[in-house]
Amino acid sequence: MASDIHHRTQDFIKLYPTVLRDLKEVFGTQGDVLITVSSGTGALEASITNFFSEGDKVVICCAGKFGERWVELAKAFRLNAVVLMAEYGSVVAPAAVEAALNENPDTKGVLFQASETSTGAAHDVKAIGEITKKTGALCIVDAITGLGTMPLDIDGWGLDIVVGGSQKAFMIPPGLAFISVSAKAWAQSASAKLPRLYFDLKKEKKMADKGESAWTPNVSHILALAEALKYIKELGMDKLVENAQLLAKATRAAALELGLELFAPDAPSSSVTAIKAPKGMDSSDIVKGFRNQFGSVIANGQGTMKGQIFRIAHLGYFDFPDLFAMVAELEIILHSKGIPVEFGKGVAAVQRVYAEAVSAKEVAAVK
Amino acid sequence: MASDIHHRTQDFIKLYPTVLRDLKEVFGTQGDVLITVSSGTGALEASITNFFSEGDKVVICCAGKFGERWVELAKAFRLNAVVLMAEYGSVVAPAAVEAALNENPDTKGVLFQASETSTGAAHDVKAIGEITKKTGALCIVDAITGLGTMPLDIDGWGLDIVVGGSQKAFMIPPGLAFISVSAKAWAQSASAKLPRLYFDLKKEKKMADKGESAWTPNVSHILALAEALKYIKELGMDKLVENAQLLAKATRAAALELGLELFAPDAPSSSVTAIKAPKGMDSSDIVKGFRNQFGSVIANGQGTMKGQIFRIAHLGYFDFPDLFAMVAELEIILHSKGIPVEFGKGVAAVQRVYAEAVSAKEVAAVK
Repeated sequence: MASDIHHRTQDFIKLYPTVLRDLKEVFGTQGDVLITVSSGTGALEASITNFFSEGDKVVICCAGKFGERWVELAKAFRLNAVVLMAEYGSVVAPAAVEAALNENPDTKGVLFQASETSTGAAHDVKAIGEITKKTGALCIVDAITGLGTMPLDIDGWGLDIVVGGSQKAFMIPPGLAFISVSAKAWAQSASAKLPRLYFDLKKEKKMADKGESAWTPNVSHILALAEALKYIKELGMDKLVENAQLLAKATRAAALELGLELFAPDAPSSSVTAIKAPKGMDSSDIVKGFRNQFGSVIANGQGTMKGQIFRIAHLGYFDFPDLFAMVAELEIILHSKGIPVEFGKGVAAVQRVYAEAVSAKEVAAVK
Repeated sequence: MASDIHHRTQDFIKLYPTVLRDLKEVFGTQGDVLITVSSGTGALEASITNFFSEGDKVVICCAGKFGERWVELAKAFRLNAVVLMAEYGSVVAPAAVEAALNENPDTKGVLFQASETSTGAAHDVKAIGEITKKTGALCIVDAITGLGTMPLDIDGWGLDIVVGGSQKAFMIPPGLAFISVSAKAWAQSASAKLPRLYFDLKKEKKMADKGESAWTPNVSHILALAEALKYIKELGMDKLVENAQLLAKATRAAALELGLELFAPDAPSSSVTAIKAPKGMDSSDIVKGFRNQFGSVIANGQGTMKGQIFRIAHLGYFDFPDLFAMVAELEIILHSKGIPVEFGKGVAAVQRVYAEAVSAKEVAAVK
C-alpha cells in the first residue's frame, strides 16, 4: 500500500472501518471508539466539550501535571470543578472519590488519569470506575499512557470515556488520539451545551458509521496505525499489558537494588517508573548522561519535579533488551557521578524478574 | 536525522523554531505563524474561538461547501453571522462585503475562502482585505488551498488571520495546520471570551517563543515539513504560485478546447479547476475512468455538485508532466463515453500555454 492515499477514495474508505474495528477490539469495549487528528489533549478537550454544559459539576482527581491539565480544561470550559488533590507521587484514594460523590450528588463527571505520567503513579481505575458507575456521573479516564500498559476493563468497570494517544503503547508517532464513548456518555451528550465543532464526536461517529472521518484524517498515521493494530492483535493486548507490568516491576527492583528511592512506591504505574535522584544530585545530570553517553532518551521530572526525579517508560515497543541496557547505563552514570554502585547489580535484578516470569510461564505450560 | 525524535529533547527544540521561522518566511508576514496538530478545520475553529465572544457579529462570504463550514462554525460557537451567499461557481463581490460592513458597523470579523475548493472559484482576497482593513473587523482567510497557489500579501492586504494546511501546497500528508495572526488580531483576542484550550493560540505562541509546542507535536510531520519548507524556500513561494497559476490557465484552455464548460469561469481559482461534465454525462464516470484506467485521482463535485462537475488540482508538486497526462487521459475517457474528441487537442492547448510561458521567460532573460 502506498505511504499516502487520498482520504476521499475507496482505498481509504476500505481501510478506515478496519482500523476503527481493530481499535475497538484492542480497547476491548462494546462502545464506540473514535479517532481525532490531534494530540491526546485534543481528545481530553473532546471528553469535556461533548458531555458537559457551562457550570456542570465535575470531580477531578489531581495527582500531577496531567491532573492539572484536567483542572485547566475544566476552568477553560467553565465547569464547576471539585478538585481532589494528591501529593506528587501519590494518587487520590477511591474512598475520597466516593465521599466527594456523596457530598456532591449533582456531579456529572469524574475525571482522572489511569497513569499519571508526570509522577509514575497509577489510580485504582477499577475502584473509581465501580464507584462512579453507581451514580449518574460519567467516569472519564485519561488513559493516554495507561492503555496497553495496565488492565482496563472499559465495559466491566464502567469507564464511560477512555482517551488514548497514538505515540504511546500504539507505537506510532504522535498525531492521533483515540476516545471510547459508552451509551451512558452518549445519553449525557445529548444535553451537553458546550460549543464544539472540530471535536464534535457525534459528527465523527456519524461519519465513522459511513467508513469516513469528519475532517481530513492524518492518512499517513492511519496507515501506520493499521499496521500497529495488526501487531497488537497478533501479540494480544493482554500480553502487551503484561510485558509493561513486568518491565515496571523489574525497573523498580533494579532501582531498589541500586539504593535508589521510588517516587511513587505506593501506587506504581506500569507505563512509567519515576525514580528519585540520589541525594545531592540533580536528575537533569542523569537524563543528560543517558543522552550524551548512550543516545538513550529518558524523561526528567516536569515542573517542580524537574531535577528531582527521572522517569523510564515501559510503553509499547520497550522490552527487556532495552531495560537491560538502560539499567547498565544508569549504573555507569551514577558511578561516574561518584555514587557508589556495584556494576551489574541493578541489571541482575532485572534479569531475575525476567527469568522468574519466564520460568513461571514454563511451569504453567507444563501444567 | 531520525524519522522520529522525542519532542521534549534538544533535537526537537533546535528544529521547531527553524520550522516556525521558515513557515513565517513562506507565509511572507511579519506577524506570527503558529502550527496546530489538526486538520485545517481545527485551525479554522481556532480562528473563531481565539478572537470572538458569543454573539459577536461576523460577515461570512459563502460560495460553496467550505463557505458553509464557516457558517457551521459560527453557528456552533454562537456568533451572530451575516451570511453573504454566492451561487456555486461564483464568489461574493468585494462591493457586497463593503455594503455589509457599512450596514453592520459592529462587525468583528469577515470570514471567507481564498479559494473555494468545492467549486474552483477564488475570492478577490486583496479587495476584501483592503475593505476590511479600514474597519475594526478582522479579515480571516481560509487559505488552506490558496496558500502557495495564489498571491497572498498578508501584511500588505491586511489579512489578520490566514489558515493553511500541511497536505496542500506544502506537499506533506495531512495532520498539521498553520495559522498566521496579525497584531490587530492579537489585540482583539485579549477580549475574546469563547472557551478554548487545545487551540489556545496565546498558549501556543508562548511555547513557540520558547522553541516548543503547547501540546505534543506531530513530530514525524514536523520533520517532513522542515524538508518541504527548505524546498519551497529554494524554489521561491512566488514561483510555486506562478506554476499553479500557469497549470490552472492551461487546464482551462484544455477544457475549452475540448468543448467543456468551466464551472467558475468568472473567478477561476488557481488551486483547483472545476469542469462541468458534458451534457447527459455523470461526472462520477469521469472520476472513475481516471482511477480505474489510469490510477489517477481527481475529485468529484461535493454535495449537490456531485455528478455535475469534476475537479483537477494544481497544488504543490503537481506540474506540467502530470497535466499533459491528465488531459490525455481525459480525452480518452470522454471518447470512450461517446463524446466526440479529437485526440491531442486538449493536450496541445496545455502545451501552448507551457511553451508561451517558457518563451516569455526566455525573452525576459534576453532583455
